[in-house]
Amino acid sequence: MSLSPLLQELITSLRVLPGVGPKSAQRMALHLLERDRQGAVNLASALEAAVEHIGECERCRNLSEQPVCGICEDSSRDRHVVCVLESPVDLMAVEQTGGFNGLYFVLKGHLSPIDGVGPDELGLDRLFALVEAGDVTELILATNPTVEGEATAHYIAEQLDESAVNITRIAHGVPVGGELEFVDGGTLAHAFAGRRSLRRGRDD
Amino acid sequence: MSLSPLLQELITSLRVLPGVGPKSAQRMALHLLERDRQGAVNLASALEAAVEHIGECERCRNLSEQPVCGICEDSSRDRHVVCVLESPVDLMAVEQTGGFNGLYFVLKGHLSPIDGVGPDELGLDRLFALVEAGDVTELILATNPTVEGEATAHYIAEQLDESAVNITRIAHGVPVGGELEFVDGGTLAHAFAGRRSLRRGRDD
Repeated sequence: MSLSPLLQELITSLRVLPGVGPKSAQRMALHLLERDRQGAVNLASALEAAVEHIGECERCRNLSEQPVCGICEDSSRDRHVVCVLESPVDLMAVEQTGGFNGLYFVLKGHLSPIDGVGPDELGLDRLFALVEAGDVTELILATNPTVEGEATAHYIAEQLDESAVNITRIAHGVPVGGELEFVDGGTLAHAFAGRRSLRRGRDD
Repeated sequence: MSLSPLLQELITSLRVLPGVGPKSAQRMALHLLERDRQGAVNLASALEAAVEHIGECERCRNLSEQPVCGICEDSSRDRHVVCVLESPVDLMAVEQTGGFNGLYFVLKGHLSPIDGVGPDELGLDRLFALVEAGDVTELILATNPTVEGEATAHYIAEQLDESAVNITRIAHGVPVGGELEFVDGGTLAHAFAGRRSLRRGRDD
């Protein structure tokens, strides 16, 4: 098909977006050109500004355009609790619950020796230095409940074995609103192993 | 949530893409920043180039970065048949079938007096001039089978009543591979009204 080369290029470039296949890319390109050229111009400049200015927070490794991110600088947050996450997406998910008021530490990955991802790539030296500085009383390991996420959590816990910090792992179990019938076996096993007494006082 | 303002802006800008809600926009922004910054830069420049250089073909009104588009300039195409479509997306869909070798005319809309879209906005004067120039022997009206699309097709046919050109409308009926059970009543009625004899010679 004799498509305009620039249009073809735009369609190809849109494919870098996750979840966008050839058909969606085509629809997006035509939508922008036919109905929202201003939106396309804005998107182009937002992309450029974001790529140029957004780096990582030097304390928590979250995406930030300042040397230290807004969460780390927020004096109203509890500096004694640090939640360790695999990625900025996870951080946004936790932030959106509004239920956590501590600080974060973003690993940007999980231990994966095959892919050459070791403790250095995850910035674990920085995390350990943070813990050793003494301010932190609880470290919540909220890596994903996958084999690699679990391994990463266990590695961190092991390395901090000598430290006085309280190390916790988020609970795994049946999702709220989920039905037992549709929950996989591994999750169900976790839910049973992590069961808690409903009678006050008997709960450990 | 104390999100980086530039990141927030990128997420908002991504929402101009059709079918992209707040969650997808967030996922896209983080994906680009974390894993494909080069892709983001390429996308930004493709967007800028496309918006700056892509206009419309002066003959067929399709999107084109040249004054006359590649299809209109292609000497191997049949200049006697012109297919009239509502939008460049429709043109791409027809082109991708590979079954049509004539030229196109893109209306970029349909008659809709309420929205202020009349014959002038659809470039109908240009279409009529093209037909009157005499080269065209068949005009295939392939506007959408909606109320507005049908009205537009009928208006064009009416205006060219005096002309010698053969005016046809694409067939509407049961989609190939579709099942009668799931086809709506309007389509079924069209399919019955447009039935053709299977015996050669009896077909009109």
